[in-house]
Amino acid sequence: MAGSSFGRHFRITNWGESHGPAIGTVVDGCPPRMELAEGDIQAELDRRRPGQSAMTTPRSEADKVQILSGVFRGQTTGTPISLLIPSTNTISQDYDEIEHAFRPGHADFTYQAKYGIRNPFGGGRSSARVTAGIVAAGAIAQKFLREQLNVTVTSYVRQLGAVVAAVNPEAIHRAAVESNIVRCPDAAAAERMIALIKESAEKHDSVGGVIECIIRNVPPGLGDPIFDKLDADLAKAMLAINATKGFELGSGFGCAAMHGSEHNDAYEMKGGKVVTKTNHAGGILGGISTGMPIVFRVAFKPTASIAQPQQTVTVKGEATVLETKGRHDPSVLPRAVPVVDAMAAITILDHYLAATGFAGGR
Amino acid sequence: MAGSSFGRHFRITNWGESHGPAIGTVVDGCPPRMELAEGDIQAELDRRRPGQSAMTTPRSEADKVQILSGVFRGQTTGTPISLLIPSTNTISQDYDEIEHAFRPGHADFTYQAKYGIRNPFGGGRSSARVTAGIVAAGAIAQKFLREQLNVTVTSYVRQLGAVVAAVNPEAIHRAAVESNIVRCPDAAAAERMIALIKESAEKHDSVGGVIECIIRNVPPGLGDPIFDKLDADLAKAMLAINATKGFELGSGFGCAAMHGSEHNDAYEMKGGKVVTKTNHAGGILGGISTGMPIVFRVAFKPTASIAQPQQTVTVKGEATVLETKGRHDPSVLPRAVPVVDAMAAITILDHYLAATGFAGGR
Amino acid sequence: MAGSSFGRHFRITNWGESHGPAIGTVVDGCPPRMELAEGDIQAELDRRRPGQSAMTTPRSEADKVQILSGVFRGQTTGTPISLLIPSTNTISQDYDEIEHAFRPGHADFTYQAKYGIRNPFGGGRSSARVTAGIVAAGAIAQKFLREQLNVTVTSYVRQLGAVVAAVNPEAIHRAAVESNIVRCPDAAAAERMIALIKESAEKHDSVGGVIECIIRNVPPGLGDPIFDKLDADLAKAMLAINATKGFELGSGFGCAAMHGSEHNDAYEMKGGKVVTKTNHAGGILGGISTGMPIVFRVAFKPTASIAQPQQTVTVKGEATVLETKGRHDPSVLPRAVPVVDAMAAITILDHYLAATGFAGGR
Amino acid sequence: MAGSSFGRHFRITNWGESHGPAIGTVVDGCPPRMELAEGDIQAELDRRRPGQSAMTTPRSEADKVQILSGVFRGQTTGTPISLLIPSTNTISQDYDEIEHAFRPGHADFTYQAKYGIRNPFGGGRSSARVTAGIVAAGAIAQKFLREQLNVTVTSYVRQLGAVVAAVNPEAIHRAAVESNIVRCPDAAAAERMIALIKESAEKHDSVGGVIECIIRNVPPGLGDPIFDKLDADLAKAMLAINATKGFELGSGFGCAAMHGSEHNDAYEMKGGKVVTKTNHAGGILGGISTGMPIVFRVAFKPTASIAQPQQTVTVKGEATVLETKGRHDPSVLPRAVPVVDAMAAITILDHYLAATGFAGGR
Repeated sequence: MAGSSFGRHFRITNWGESHGPAIGTVVDGCPPRMELAEGDIQAELDRRRPGQSAMTTPRSEADKVQILSGVFRGQTTGTPISLLIPSTNTISQDYDEIEHAFRPGHADFTYQAKYGIRNPFGGGRSSARVTAGIVAAGAIAQKFLREQLNVTVTSYVRQLGAVVAAVNPEAIHRAAVESNIVRCPDAAAAERMIALIKESAEKHDSVGGVIECIIRNVPPGLGDPIFDKLDADLAKAMLAINATKGFELGSGFGCAAMHGSEHNDAYEMKGGKVVTKTNHAGGILGGISTGMPIVFRVAFKPTASIAQPQQTVTVKGEATVLETKGRHDPSVLPRAVPVVDAMAAITILDHYLAATGFAGGR
Repeated sequence: MAGSSFGRHFRITNWGESHGPAIGTVVDGCPPRMELAEGDIQAELDRRRPGQSAMTTPRSEADKVQILSGVFRGQTTGTPISLLIPSTNTISQDYDEIEHAFRPGHADFTYQAKYGIRNPFGGGRSSARVTAGIVAAGAIAQKFLREQLNVTVTSYVRQLGAVVAAVNPEAIHRAAVESNIVRCPDAAAAERMIALIKESAEKHDSVGGVIECIIRNVPPGLGDPIFDKLDADLAKAMLAINATKGFELGSGFGCAAMHGSEHNDAYEMKGGKVVTKTNHAGGILGGISTGMPIVFRVAFKPTASIAQPQQTVTVKGEATVLETKGRHDPSVLPRAVPVVDAMAAITILDHYLAATGFAGGR
Repeated sequence: MAGSSFGRHFRITNWGESHGPAIGTVVDGCPPRMELAEGDIQAELDRRRPGQSAMTTPRSEADKVQILSGVFRGQTTGTPISLLIPSTNTISQDYDEIEHAFRPGHADFTYQAKYGIRNPFGGGRSSARVTAGIVAAGAIAQKFLREQLNVTVTSYVRQLGAVVAAVNPEAIHRAAVESNIVRCPDAAAAERMIALIKESAEKHDSVGGVIECIIRNVPPGLGDPIFDKLDADLAKAMLAINATKGFELGSGFGCAAMHGSEHNDAYEMKGGKVVTKTNHAGGILGGISTGMPIVFRVAFKPTASIAQPQQTVTVKGEATVLETKGRHDPSVLPRAVPVVDAMAAITILDHYLAATGFAGGR
Repeated sequence: MAGSSFGRHFRITNWGESHGPAIGTVVDGCPPRMELAEGDIQAELDRRRPGQSAMTTPRSEADKVQILSGVFRGQTTGTPISLLIPSTNTISQDYDEIEHAFRPGHADFTYQAKYGIRNPFGGGRSSARVTAGIVAAGAIAQKFLREQLNVTVTSYVRQLGAVVAAVNPEAIHRAAVESNIVRCPDAAAAERMIALIKESAEKHDSVGGVIECIIRNVPPGLGDPIFDKLDADLAKAMLAINATKGFELGSGFGCAAMHGSEHNDAYEMKGGKVVTKTNHAGGILGGISTGMPIVFRVAFKPTASIAQPQQTVTVKGEATVLETKGRHDPSVLPRAVPVVDAMAAITILDHYLAATGFAGGR
C-alpha cells in the first residue's frame, strides 16, 4: 500500500525512475485466455514515446516493451504479467545542478521532504517517464474492453492554452485524434495549438491544457458505492497522472450555474434499453455507470521545466537561481492523451472485474 | 473492498440507508490516547443536521450520535470506534411512486442495474443522509489534526448558481463560515445566495454550486506516489460525496490557460522553512504536500429532487411522468460544507498516519 | 487496514469490547437478493452464547442480534449489513485488580505495550466476546453457501486435553455435532470430555483442544496464488480466532513423516468429475480448491483465565500475585466451534465472490 | 488483490513462471536511506539456489539478481525496488507429457480448473522457483531488521521424515544452520537426514519435514487485532509457501493436552523489561508481540514430483499413468529454510512499519 499500485481486481504495480536501466509494471489480475503479444502493447507505447514529433522532447527512446511472464503460447494465463521497458537514452550529466536545488513546479522538494533522499536524474521517480509503464498496462486493459465488451476509450486534447477545440465528444474516434501531432480532432484548433506550442518553445516557456475522455458502451451497473464510486476512482486515476490539477465529469464545474430542472437527465427507452435524453451526468449516477457514454475532462498544468532562470532555494536553504536544462515537451498534453486512455481503461476494467469475477465472466 | 470503506490507516466503514432505524460508521485506526466524547462529534453533526435553517429540508432529525466502542474513560484506545446515529423521522409513505419509476438525476436506475434490487425509501443507500456517518467520523479526524498538529480544515460555499463569493481563501476561518446560513463568509454574496435559494425553492427548482476548502499547517511530505498521491486521494474523497461533479486543486482548470513561467511557484526561505511565493500548486507537488496551504474546490450539481413533473420510465420500461415528493434542500451546498471538511480531514489524517505509524507518532 | 476487517470481497468489520454497551459487525459485500432475517443469524449466535450449558461461563447474555441496514423487505440489497448485539450483563466491578496487573496468558500486557492504554473490563477488545460479531457475520456467509452452492461447513471438537475423538470427518454432520454440550460427535469421547472439563473446573484449571472443520461441495478453482491462497487465508482466519495456536490442512504436521508416494493423491474420474482417491491435500492444491472436501484442524490453548494465584507484574513493573476472577469457560472449545464455522464460511465465500463477482454470479 | 502481493506497508509483488525468461519481485514500501547492493540480496539467493548441493535438484541456475530501481548511489530511496532474476536453464522439452495430464500432488489440475489454461513447463506459476523472488525481497527485509532493530530471523530443519533434531531453538544461530547441507544444526540428526534423503532419492521417492523459525529481539507491541494479528499474518505467510500443510506457534498443537496452569507464561521483570518465565505463547499474545522470541513451526509435505508411475487422468478426463520427469529435490526442506526466513522477515517488517510509519521511524 505504499503508493505504486492501482486497482483492486485488475491491479497494476509500477516501478522505475527516469534514468534507471529500465522501467516497468506488473499487471496482476488480467483475465486468462486473452490473446496478447508485445505488439498489442507497443502500439500504445508508440503513442506516448518521446521524440515522436516536433512537439515533444528530443529525448529518443525506442520504448520497446518485453513481456516477461503471464503469457503462454500467446494467451494470458491469469497470472501476473510483468512488463519491462529498457531505457537507453539516459544522459545523467545534465542534472548536477538540480541535485542541489529544488526546481519550481517539480517534486524535488516534496520528495526530499518525504524521503530525506531523492534520485535527481531526470526527476527520478517523479518523472513522467514512469507513465510509460502505465500506458503499457493500459494497452492490455483497452484490448480486453474492446474485444470482450466493445468498450472504447477515446481521449483527445480539448484545450491548449486559450485554444479550445470545437468537438462533439460523442462523435470523436481514435483515428481523428491521431490525425495530427497535437491529438486534437478539430483540425483548425489543432493548427492554432501547434502554433501556440512553437511560440511557447521559442519563448522558453510552456503551456497547459485540458484533455477530454469519452468511454463508450460501458454496461450499466459498474461502480461500488459509497467510496469506490466509479467517478471517484476515475478522479483518483486522473489526479495520479503527472501534472494534473483537476477532474470533472459530465457537466463538471459548469453544473454550479445550472438548475435541477435543466441538469436532470430525463429517462426514456431506446432499443429496449433505458437511456437518458441528455447526459449531464457524464454516464455515472450515484457512483454507478448508467450505460450512457462516460465523459470527463482533466486539467494539465503547463510543463514545469522551462529554460528560463527561476528563483528557488538549495537543499541547504540558500536562495539561488536555477535554469532547468534537460529535454522537455513545451506541453505535455499530446503525449498525455494515451496516459489518460490507459488510466481510464484500467479503472473501467477494474470495476468490470468486480462485477464479473477475476476471469471477466468468461 | 465492496465500497463502503475509505482510508488505509484511518479507515472508516459506513453503513445505513435513509429510512432505516439508524446509520453509522466504524472508525478503525484512530490513534490511541486522544480525548473523545460524544459532544466533540455532535458539534460537527449539528452543522450537517437537516432542519437547521430555512435553507434546508424540513425533515427533522436530532442526529444524536452514540459512541458504542473504542473509548475508555474518555480516551480512545486505538480499537474501532463504532458511531451510531438513530433515525427518528422516517416517513416511508412518500415513496410509493419512486419504487416503481426512476427519478431523473438520482441513483434509482443505477442501483437497480447493479444490484437487481434497491431500497427506495428516501433513496435508500444513495441518500445524502449517509453522509451523517461520514461527518461523525470526520469530527474525530479534525479533532486529532487540530490538537496534535494545529491542522485546520475550513470549507465554505464559494459559488451558488451564478453568485460567486469574493473570498481570500487564505484568510477565512470557521467562525466566518458559520456566520450565516449558507456558509459563505462573503456577507454580501451570502445575501444573494439566500435570495437565490428562496427563488429556486419557490420555482420548485434547485441550484448547484462550488465549495472551496483550505487546509492549513499540513506538514510537508505527506502523500504516496505514484497512485496514492495526496491530491489523488482528495479527488477520490470529494467525488465520493453525493452530487459532486468535479475537483480541482490550486490553479485547477485555470492552469490550462497559463504559462509555466507564471504557474511555477518560486521557492524562498521564510522563518527557516522552504515556502513558495505563490501557491498555484495548491499545496501539493508530485502528490506530496509542500507545507503550503492545501486549497481545492468541489463542484456540486443542483439537487436532483425537484417538485416538478419530469419524464422518466418505470421499472418495467414504460414511459411515465414523475413528480418527486419528499423533503429536500433546494441546494445541498450549505449542508455539504461539513461533509467536505470531514472527507478532507479523514484523507489528511490517513496520510499522516502512513508517515508516523498507527499511533500518530505519539 | 487497522486490523478489524477481514475479507476482500465479503468484507466484515468487527467492533466492540467485552463490557461495552454493544458489539457488532458490518458486513460489506454480501450478494444482493438473498433472503435474510434476524432469525437466520440468531440460530448461529445461540450456539456461541454464554451460559448455554454447564460447560460454559455463567455470564448470561441473550445475544439478540439486530439488523440495522442492508436488508429490504427480507432481502439483502448488496449494501452493508450492520449487525448489532447489545450487551446486557456487564459487571465491571470484578476487574479492578487486573486494571493494575497483567494476567498471564492474556493480552493485557501486549495491548498496553501497543496502545499505551487498554480497556481492562472483561479483557476489553481482546475478549472472546467479540467473536459473537464474527459468528453473526458467518451465519450470513453460511446461509449463502448452503443455499446457492450446497456448501456446508461442519466443525466439531476432535480433541480435548488428552481425549481424542474417533470420528470420520467425511461422515459428520451438524446434528451429530449438536447432539451433546461439548460438540463432539463421538458420544463416548464426549462423555470423557465432559468429565475432563468438570474435573478441570473443580481444580480451578482449564484445558485445551483441537477443532476439526470439514467443508463439503466447494467447487474446484477457488483461491488466489501466490499469497492469497485459499489455505493461506484459512490459516489466517483461524489464527485470528482467540486462543488458537496452530492450523493444519489435510495431512497437516503428519505429512512430515510421509513419503511422496503415499502422500500424493491419485486422480480418477467419478461421475464425470476429476476427484482424488485419497485426500491428504485436504481439498486444496497450490492454494486452489480441488473440489474434494476441505479438511483442517485448529489448536486451541487452555483458557488463560483460571481461578488460581499466578505470578505476574503490575503495570508499574512490580512483582505481584494475581488470581483472576470473572466468569470463564473451563474450555473454550465447545463455544469456539461456531466461531470456526463462521470464519471458514467467510473465507470460502470471499474467494467464491472473487471468482464470480460481487453478486455471486447470480 | 489478485494474489501476487503480500504485505500492507512493506509490500511485495511477485511475478514469473518456472521456465520464463526471468522471475522477479517488486518491493514497494522499503524505508528510504538504507544501504542496499545486489550482493546483500545475492547472499540469501545463494542459500535457495538450485544445484547448491547433492541434496537438491540438478537444475543449475546462477540466480543472479539485478536491482532495476529504487536505489540511488547505494541507498534506498523509498520508491519501489524492482528485483529481476533471469532464468537460464529452462529445458521445456521434458514437459510434453504433463501438459496433457495432471500430476498428483501438484497444482496442474487446480490451475486448469481456475484459469482454464496453464503454463505446464516446470509447473509454470505454481513452481517453487517463484520463491526465489520472495527470498530476494526477504533479504531486504532481513537487512533492515538486523541493522535497525537487531532483529534476527533463524530457521532450520527440525524434522525430516521421522528424524527429529534435538535443538534448543533459543540457542541456534545462522552459522550453525549453514554448517551442513540439510540446514539442521543438530549434527547427528543432520547425518541421518542426509542418509534419509539419499535413500529416498534412490527409491525414487521423497520425504516431508518440519522447519522451525525463531525471531529474536522483536519489540513488544507489533500486530493488529482482531484480524491482522501478527500470528495470523505469519500463518498466512507460511501457508503461502509451496508445499506447506501446517503452522503452529509456541506450544502449537501440543497445547491441546495442556492445562492453563502449566500453559500460562508467568510474567516477571528482567533488566527493566517485562518478560515471561516460559514462552508457550511463542512470543505473541492476543495477536501482538510480547517481546519474547517468536517461535513457530511449519510442516512441509514430501515433494510431489517423484520418478514413479502414478495414476492420474488426462486433461480430457481419461485415466492414465504418469511418471514425472524433470529435475527435483528429494526433499524441499533444506532449500525452503531461506524462504521461511524471507516470509517471516517480510511479515515482521510489515507490522513494524505499521507502528512506525513508512520510513521505519527514522
